[in-house]
Order: sequence, then C-alpha cells, then structure tokens
Amino acid sequence: MSIARTPEPPYTAVIFTSLRTPGDQGYARMSERMVELAAQQPGFLGIESAREGLGITVSYWSDDDAAAAWKQVHEHVVAQERGRSTWYEDYEVRIATVTRAYGKPAADPTD
Amino acid sequence: MSIARTPEPPYTAVIFTSLRTPGDQGYARMSERMVELAAQQPGFLGIESAREGLGITVSYWSDDDAAAAWKQVHEHVVAQERGRSTWYEDYEVRIATVTRAYGKPAADPTD
Repeated sequence: MSIARTPEPPYTAVIFTSLRTPGDQGYARMSERMVELAAQQPGFLGIESAREGLGITVSYWSDDDAAAAWKQVHEHVVAQERGRSTWYEDYEVRIATVTRAYGKPAADPTD
Repeated sequence: MSIARTPEPPYTAVIFTSLRTPGDQGYARMSERMVELAAQQPGFLGIESAREGLGITVSYWSDDDAAAAWKQVHEHVVAQERGRSTWYEDYEVRIATVTRAYGKPAADPTD
C-alpha cells in the first residue's frame, strides 16, 4: 500500500484503529473487498492501512457526508456487524477534519 | 501498542504516513525515544503506530497548539531533519481535528 495522494485540505479522515481476534475467519477477503468497494464510493479520496498487532486504517473523503454515506453502504454494514461480532477484539473510530497537510520536500537538485 | 484512550472530542490528530528507506540507520532507537518524549509534552493524549510496508503513526493532542509545540521540541526537530535526510523515502503529515469518536459497544451480558 502507498501513501494516499489527497487534495488540498479541508477533507475528512476516518481513523479506524483495531485489535483483531485470533484466526482469519474470513477477515482477509472482507478487508480486500472493503478497500475495493470504498474506492467506488462518491467522495472517496484514498485509503492507507497497516497492521502490526495494532491495526490502523485511515480513509479519506471529500467531506463528512461522503464518509457517513460509506458507513451506510449495505455490504459495509454487513462487514461492520461481522467486525463487532467476530473479527475485532476492540476498536475505535475517529472522524476528523484535515485542516493542514504537507509532504516530504522535493530533493534539492544541488544536494 | 494498544488503542489510545482519548477523551471526548474535539481534539487534534496528527496523521503521519511514511515509507522507510532500507536499513535501520538508528531509526528504531529514535522512534522509541520520540514516543517516550512525546508522552512528556503538554497536551499529549496518546499515540498509535503500525508499520506494514507503509507506516502510520497517529498522535493525539489536546489542540493544534499542543501539536505545533511538539513539532518544535529540539530533539524532535533533530529527528525530523534526520527523517528527511535518511530514514524516510517519502511521507505525508496531516493535521486534523477529531470531531466525533466511538468505540466497540460493550458486549451484551445476555449474549
């Protein structure tokens, strides 16, 4: 996975932090499908994800309404239910407004 | 690392997404030290981190001023310079205001 190429702020970030239960139980397939499905939603800007014990997924949206609409997509609702019942020992969802962003400066050609 | 126990929003999240250069080059030690040092700063609320190729670290602060003050702490400034020159192939920093948050519902005792 690479760094999401998001536009100039403001935009919405949904920070999803989670701890998994043991075993896959269909998780890997669902996880892949949700990334694919999210990318098809209106207002989707990008997604970044890593797990190292703790899992962090940040999805980026044009605004809070686009993020809220994704939460209601049927297949995602089913995945959320399965997440609560089966896949996640614990999780936290934080909805945030990105107000400022900057990347690594371009290399100085004289370096 | 565990899920940060943050207070009720609003608060500030600094989302740091990065791709590392090959080799450690002092990175692991610095990384550990920065977590320790961040935790001592005024307004620090918590930190979450995972790397799986892509690295994502989210630090939480009482407000934007607390996050901005952390960026100026001398040892952190030195680490940022070393990050640009040596440790990170690429990165993006996003400063965001968390407006809403929720966790996994408590298990229903009748389940």
